[in-house]
Amino acid sequence: MTETIVKIDLSKSAYENDMIHNRWHPDIPMVATVKPGDDFIMECYDWTGGQIENNDSADDVRDVDLTQVHFLSGPVGVEGAEPGDLLVVDILDIGTFEESNWGFNGFFSKNNGGGFLTEHFPDAQKSIWDFNGMFTKSRHIPGVEFAGLIHPGLIGCLPSKEMLDTWNEREKGLYDTNPDRVPALATLPYADTAHMGRMSGDAAKEAAAEGARTVPPREHGGNCDIKDLSRGSKIYFPVYVDGGGLSVGDLHFSQGDGEITFCGAIEMAGWIHLRVNLVKGGMEKYGVKNPIFKPSPITPKYDDYIIFEGISVDEYGEQHYLDVHVAYRQACLNAIEFLTKFGYTKAQSYAILGCAPVQGHISGVVDIPNACATLWLPNDIFDIDLNPTADGPMVQVENTVDVPLSKDKE
Amino acid sequence: MTETIVKIDLSKSAYENDMIHNRWHPDIPMVATVKPGDDFIMECYDWTGGQIENNDSADDVRDVDLTQVHFLSGPVGVEGAEPGDLLVVDILDIGTFEESNWGFNGFFSKNNGGGFLTEHFPDAQKSIWDFNGMFTKSRHIPGVEFAGLIHPGLIGCLPSKEMLDTWNEREKGLYDTNPDRVPALATLPYADTAHMGRMSGDAAKEAAAEGARTVPPREHGGNCDIKDLSRGSKIYFPVYVDGGGLSVGDLHFSQGDGEITFCGAIEMAGWIHLRVNLVKGGMEKYGVKNPIFKPSPITPKYDDYIIFEGISVDEYGEQHYLDVHVAYRQACLNAIEFLTKFGYTKAQSYAILGCAPVQGHISGVVDIPNACATLWLPNDIFDIDLNPTADGPMVQVENTVDVPLSKDKE
Amino acid sequence: MTETIVKIDLSKSAYENDMIHNRWHPDIPMVATVKPGDDFIMECYDWTGGQIENNDSADDVRDVDLTQVHFLSGPVGVEGAEPGDLLVVDILDIGTFEESNWGFNGFFSKNNGGGFLTEHFPDAQKSIWDFNGMFTKSRHIPGVEFAGLIHPGLIGCLPSKEMLDTWNEREKGLYDTNPDRVPALATLPYADTAHMGRMSGDAAKEAAAEGARTVPPREHGGNCDIKDLSRGSKIYFPVYVDGGGLSVGDLHFSQGDGEITFCGAIEMAGWIHLRVNLVKGGMEKYGVKNPIFKPSPITPKYDDYIIFEGISVDEYGEQHYLDVHVAYRQACLNAIEFLTKFGYTKAQSYAILGCAPVQGHISGVVDIPNACATLWLPNDIFDIDLNPTADGPMVQVENTVDVPLSKDKE
Amino acid sequence: MTETIVKIDLSKSAYENDMIHNRWHPDIPMVATVKPGDDFIMECYDWTGGQIENNDSADDVRDVDLTQVHFLSGPVGVEGAEPGDLLVVDILDIGTFEESNWGFNGFFSKNNGGGFLTEHFPDAQKSIWDFNGMFTKSRHIPGVEFAGLIHPGLIGCLPSKEMLDTWNEREKGLYDTNPDRVPALATLPYADTAHMGRMSGDAAKEAAAEGARTVPPREHGGNCDIKDLSRGSKIYFPVYVDGGGLSVGDLHFSQGDGEITFCGAIEMAGWIHLRVNLVKGGMEKYGVKNPIFKPSPITPKYDDYIIFEGISVDEYGEQHYLDVHVAYRQACLNAIEFLTKFGYTKAQSYAILGCAPVQGHISGVVDIPNACATLWLPNDIFDIDLNPTADGPMVQVENTVDVPLSKDKE
Repeated sequence: MTETIVKIDLSKSAYENDMIHNRWHPDIPMVATVKPGDDFIMECYDWTGGQIENNDSADDVRDVDLTQVHFLSGPVGVEGAEPGDLLVVDILDIGTFEESNWGFNGFFSKNNGGGFLTEHFPDAQKSIWDFNGMFTKSRHIPGVEFAGLIHPGLIGCLPSKEMLDTWNEREKGLYDTNPDRVPALATLPYADTAHMGRMSGDAAKEAAAEGARTVPPREHGGNCDIKDLSRGSKIYFPVYVDGGGLSVGDLHFSQGDGEITFCGAIEMAGWIHLRVNLVKGGMEKYGVKNPIFKPSPITPKYDDYIIFEGISVDEYGEQHYLDVHVAYRQACLNAIEFLTKFGYTKAQSYAILGCAPVQGHISGVVDIPNACATLWLPNDIFDIDLNPTADGPMVQVENTVDVPLSKDKE
Repeated sequence: MTETIVKIDLSKSAYENDMIHNRWHPDIPMVATVKPGDDFIMECYDWTGGQIENNDSADDVRDVDLTQVHFLSGPVGVEGAEPGDLLVVDILDIGTFEESNWGFNGFFSKNNGGGFLTEHFPDAQKSIWDFNGMFTKSRHIPGVEFAGLIHPGLIGCLPSKEMLDTWNEREKGLYDTNPDRVPALATLPYADTAHMGRMSGDAAKEAAAEGARTVPPREHGGNCDIKDLSRGSKIYFPVYVDGGGLSVGDLHFSQGDGEITFCGAIEMAGWIHLRVNLVKGGMEKYGVKNPIFKPSPITPKYDDYIIFEGISVDEYGEQHYLDVHVAYRQACLNAIEFLTKFGYTKAQSYAILGCAPVQGHISGVVDIPNACATLWLPNDIFDIDLNPTADGPMVQVENTVDVPLSKDKE
Repeated sequence: MTETIVKIDLSKSAYENDMIHNRWHPDIPMVATVKPGDDFIMECYDWTGGQIENNDSADDVRDVDLTQVHFLSGPVGVEGAEPGDLLVVDILDIGTFEESNWGFNGFFSKNNGGGFLTEHFPDAQKSIWDFNGMFTKSRHIPGVEFAGLIHPGLIGCLPSKEMLDTWNEREKGLYDTNPDRVPALATLPYADTAHMGRMSGDAAKEAAAEGARTVPPREHGGNCDIKDLSRGSKIYFPVYVDGGGLSVGDLHFSQGDGEITFCGAIEMAGWIHLRVNLVKGGMEKYGVKNPIFKPSPITPKYDDYIIFEGISVDEYGEQHYLDVHVAYRQACLNAIEFLTKFGYTKAQSYAILGCAPVQGHISGVVDIPNACATLWLPNDIFDIDLNPTADGPMVQVENTVDVPLSKDKE
Repeated sequence: MTETIVKIDLSKSAYENDMIHNRWHPDIPMVATVKPGDDFIMECYDWTGGQIENNDSADDVRDVDLTQVHFLSGPVGVEGAEPGDLLVVDILDIGTFEESNWGFNGFFSKNNGGGFLTEHFPDAQKSIWDFNGMFTKSRHIPGVEFAGLIHPGLIGCLPSKEMLDTWNEREKGLYDTNPDRVPALATLPYADTAHMGRMSGDAAKEAAAEGARTVPPREHGGNCDIKDLSRGSKIYFPVYVDGGGLSVGDLHFSQGDGEITFCGAIEMAGWIHLRVNLVKGGMEKYGVKNPIFKPSPITPKYDDYIIFEGISVDEYGEQHYLDVHVAYRQACLNAIEFLTKFGYTKAQSYAILGCAPVQGHISGVVDIPNACATLWLPNDIFDIDLNPTADGPMVQVENTVDVPLSKDKE
C-alpha cells in the first residue's frame, strides 16, 4: 500500500500543518525522505488554502488574500539528489477527496488580482464545478460537461540560495519600474502571511522575509500552470539543493491553455501520487535549464475543434509588435463573442475558456508586426453543436443562470 | 476534371503573370469568378517568386529582395459574396510540381529580414528539403525525416478600402515610433516592386502606392502561417468586398508553430485545390472578426513529444512582464541546447524547429510576472531516440554536414 | 456525495452478499431503484469472487471453480424503464480498493477452462500485476509498464423470460452436438453454485435451475469483454424487463482485444461509478438489437504500433474458410514468436497480448478462402524498442523470471 | 525526379502491358531492378483491369469476369534480396490519375462472386465515388463525405515454387470438400485468363496452369485488403525468391475493415510511390512468417464513433461456436439497421460500411460459445449527427436516390 507522506485536514487551517509551506526557500526542511524508484502520495490543499467555498456568491473571490497563496505540500527529499541532477517525476495519479468533490473557477476583481481579460471583467465572479467521476459540470454554466485533464498547477524543487537571490533581484527590478501599478508587476516577498513549513523562530522569520512568492513559474518549474503536466506525464526537474526538495500543490481538475481566468483553472483540494528517479548530472548531460517533460499517454481526447485566430492588434485598434500575449487575448475575445451567439453570457464564455481543455497555440511570431495566436475550442464538450452553418446558430443553449458576481466594496 | 484557374510557369518571372499579385488592395481585379459549391485549383509560386535556389549556398537567402514578397495567386471572385458574409473554404488538397519536388528553409541575415532568434543566428543560412511523396528530409540535416503537414502560409480575401486605410494607418504609426530600427517595426507600402495583378496604368500606380504589404496577418487572415490550416481544413473568411476576392500563396510543405526561422517554413511552389461556399451575413451571425477554422481530419500524427518550457525571463536574465514571445523564445533556445547534446549543430536544431511539426503552446499567461510557453518536439521524426535516460545521450546522430551559411557582404 | 448502492467485503464470500448474483434470470430482485439522471457507485468482486490470490503459484488458477463465475453486483432498477427502452449508461469512473491494489492474469489448464491458445499453453499459469496509480506492471514480466484502459468486462440488463428461454435452448442445442468436448462447447445452467441474489426458497431453486450462465456475451451485452467499454464511455442497453435491472462485474484494469488469455484480462476487484438515463422506446427508434456505445474521450493513447498479420491457414497448415478466429490466432502466434526474439518467454508474450491494450482488427473477410486479421502491439509499453532494424534485435529485455506454471494434478 | 517504372495506358487492355500480371508464380520475370534505398513509382490498373465503368448501371458488376483479377504491376527486383530476407517497403505516396478521378464500389451477384452479406444483397449493385482532392463522395449515397485512407489492397513478393505448391495443394483440398458450392470455397489456378507478365510460349502456358490466383491473402501478404497499409506505412515482407519480386495493385481510395462489400473498397486506378530496403536474414532474426508493418503517421482521424456489437448467434438465431466471422456480420447488420432509421436504404448503408474508414474489432474470442465483434462507425463522415437522443432520430438524410441494381439475367 502506497505511503501517504503528507496528510491534510480540510477542516483545519493550512498554517497549522507543518508539512505545508507557501514560499520558496532553500532552508525549508524536508518533511520526508524517499529513495529513487519510490512512489508516494501527498495530499494538497487547494491553492488558496480553503478561502473559496462551494456557494453561489463571489464575495470570497473578491475578498481573497492573495498574499497567502499557494499552499504547497512538501518538500520531499530524495536520497542521492544533488545540484545538477535531474529529478524524474512520474505523476502516477491525481484524485479528489470523497468529501470535497468539487472545484472552483473565478475571475478576480481588477483591484485584487485581476486577470488576462480584467479590463473586460473587472468584477469578482465565481463558478462552482461538480465532479462526477472523471467528468465535471457547473450549475452556473449550462450545457457543458467534460472529462478533467487533471494536473498540478505548481510543482518543482527548492531553489538554491543563489537562485533565490536572482529571482528576488530581477522581480524587484521589474516591480520598481512601476510600484503603484494595479495589479502589481510582480509579487515580492511578504513575511506576514508566510508559512515556512517546519522552520521556526528567527530562522523562519529571516527566511520569510526573503522567501520567494510562489506566483510565477521560474527556472525550477513552479507555478507553470501547464495543463499537459497531467497525470501520466513524466517530468525532469532541475535539482538545486541536496535532496532536491520536491513540493507540489495547486491541483487543477481541468484548465485551458493560459489559465486565463487566473482564479484559476478548476481549483481543487486533493491528492497526488508520484514516483521519483534521478538522472545524475542530468542538467549538463541534456543541457537543461527549465524542466522538460513527456506528455501523458492518457488524456481527454476532444479532437473536434473550432479554432479562433487573434493578431497583435488589440481590441482598441492599437498595433503591437509581435506580441503573442495581445494576439492570444484577441483570439479569446473572438471565442467569447462567438459563444454569446449560442446563448452564453460573456462571463460564462470566459469561464469555459479558463476551465475546459482549450488549446492555445503560438501560430506565427515573425510576420512583423503581427503575432498570430490561435485558441482551439473543443466542440464535443458542449451539448449543442457549435459548427457554423449557412443558417446561423439554430439551437441555443437553455440558459437561465449566470456566473455569480460580487462588486467591489465601496 | 477540376479546372485549374491559375497556371504558372516556374521558368518565368511572377511579374509576367497577371493572375499573380503581391500587395493587398480592394481594386485588384478578379482573375476568375466561381459559384458557391465549386472547386478549383490554383498554382502558386513559392513566396519569394523563385529567388531561392536548390543549391548549397545561402547567398540567395542573404541577398533576397523582401520587398517583393509574397506572390499570391488570385484573387478569385465568388458569385453572391458580399461584405459581411463568411466565405467557407475547404482545402481539398495541396501538392508539388513533379519538376520541383523540393523546398527551402532559411534564416535571414539580421540586416535583411532577421527572425525570431536573429540575435543568435545573425547570418543568412539555408537548408534544402527533398520531398519523397508525403515525406521530406534535408541533405543538410541528417537523421530527420517526417511527413509534411502541408498548408498555405497565406490565404484570405481582399480588404475593403476602409480596412486597407486602417491597416496602413496603424502600421505606419508603429513604424514611426522607431523608423531606423533594423529589422523594421513594420513593412509599409512600397510601390517599386508592387505587382498589382491585372491593374495597369495610373490606377495600378496609385494602388501600388497604398497597397498593403502581405507580410503580417491581419483581420482577413492573410499571412497567418498557421500550420494547422492544412489540407483538409475548413476555413471561414470574412468578406469585405463584393465577390470576396480570395487569394492564396506561400505554400509550406511543413512548418513548426511560430514559423520561427522566418525564411520560413519549408517553402515551396505548388498547387492548391479549393472548394468555396458562403454563409450569408455570417460575420454578424457568428460574431466573426478574424477567420475561424476547423482542423483537418488527416494530419501527421507524431504523438511522442519531448516538451520544453520557457518563461519570460530572457536569455540575458532580464525580467519581462507576461511576455509570451520571450517565453517561447526561451523554450526554443532550450530545445536547441538539448538537440546539440545529440550531435546536432545549433543551426540544424533551429532549422528543425522551424520546419518540423513542432507545437508551441501558450501555457500560462497570468502568473505575474512570468508567462510560460511550451515547445513540443516530436521524438518520432528522428532516427535516434531523444528520450532522456539515466546514462545521458548514448547515441549521437552521424553528422558530417551543416546548414550552409553566407556572411553579409562587407 | 455519490451513494454507494452495493458495498462488498473482500474478506467474506460473495455468496454471503445478497446484492451479488452469478446467473441471469428475470426474477432476480432489484437491490435498489434509481431515477433517470442519477449517478451511483457499485462495488464489485473480481469475477471469480476471490479464488485467485496475490502469490507466485498458479495452483489457484489450475483449481478454479468456473461454475461460480461471474459474481455480479446488482441488479439496479431504473424508474420508468420498460421493455423496448434503451438504458443509457455513462461510465463515470472505475477504481480499485486501496487494500487490493493488484490484479491477475492467467491461462487456464486445458482441462479446466482452456483458452484461445490452449493447444500451445495447456497448463495453468498466472501473472500478478501491481497497480501504481493509473499504471500497471508485473513482477513476472519485466520491462513492460502501461496505463490501464480500465473497464467492466461484464455489464447489461436482466433478460426477459422469453429471452432467457431462447438462450438456454440455442446453447443447449450447440452443447448437445458434442457433449463430451473439453473444453465444453457451452456453459449450461448449473444450480449447485448459483447465487440468485435476494431470491430464496423454492423460487431461488427453480430460478437457479434455469438461470443462464454469465460466460457468453448475448443480446443484452453481458460478458462482452470489450476493452473499449472503458471509463468515460456511454452505452445504450436494450431493456427487457420493467426497471431494466442493470448488473455489472468482472472489472478489468486492462485487456487486449479478444481477451485471449481467458483468465482473463488483468482481473480485479473494485468499484464502478455509473449514471443512467433512458431513451423511451429506443430499441425500435434506433433499430437496436445488441447494445451500441460511444467510446471514452479519455483512453490511453499508445499510437506507435507494430502490426502482425494472420490468415485463416492454421499453425498446422490446414486451410479454413474465411475463419477470422483462426486468422487472429495466427496473428497472435506471430506476435508471440516476434517477442521471443527480444528475450521474452512464450508465456510472458502470451500474457502481454492478453493484458496490454493491443488491438485486434478484422482486416479482410471476403477474399476466399482466407480471412485476414491483424494484431496491433503498442511499442511504447515496452522499456526497449521493438522496431525492426537492419541489425536485428540488438537489445534484449533483462529476464530472470517467468510466469508461474502449475501442472495438472495426476 | 522519381522514376516511374511501370506505366499504364487506361485506354488499352491490361493484357497488352507486359509489366502487368494477374497470377502468382516464381518464374514471372522482373520488370526492373532497383537498389536498396531507391524509391520509384508504379502505375496500376484498377483490380478488374477496367471492367467497371463510371455510369449508373450495375450490369458491369453483375457480368464481371472474376477469373481475370487482380491485375498487378511488377514484379520489381531488389538487388541483394535473397530468400529469408525482409523487404522493407515504405509507401511514400499514392494518387489517382487526373483523367480518372473516381472509383467504384459494388456488391457482386450471389451467383458471380457474392460477398459478406450476399444472402441479404443477392443482386449486383454499384456506387460511383468522385474524388475531390483527398475527399470522396458518391452521387448514389447522399450526405456522406470523407477523406480517403488510401492504400493498396494487394502487395507482396513472389512465392517460391515450394510455397506455390503448398498454396495450391491446401486450397485445392478445401475446394474439393464442396466443389459445387456457389460461391466457390476457393479460387483455383485458371489458365485461360492468366496474364503471366513477360513470360511467353510454353513456359507461360505451364506457369499459367499452376499460377496461384491472387484472391486470398497468404504468407507473403498479397491480397490482404488491410486498410491500414495506407500511404505512410512501412511494411516488412518475407522474401522467397532471389530479388524479392515485389508486385502491387488493387489500389483503394478508402475501405472499411473487412472490405465487406467485396467489390470491393472504393476501387481505383492510380499510381503508388514506394521505397525499398532490406533486413538481411530478417525472417529468422524477427521470427516473421507473415508480413508485419507500422501504421502511417498520417491517416484520417475520425474519432467520434458509434460502435455496434455483434455476437456469434446468426441472424436466423443459430448458435455458432466462437465464430468471429458470424459476430462481425451481426455487428454489420446492426449498423445497417441503425442507418435505415436515418433515411438510408439498406444498400446505401452496406456500401458505406464497405467504403468508409469503419473499424472492425475482435472484441472477445474466449467467452464460449459467443465471440463478440464490434464495428466502429465514424459519426463525422455524415452531414447529419447519428448520436442517439431521447427523441429518436430527428433529422433524416435527404435521399432521392439509391445504389443502382442489376438483376441476374434469366
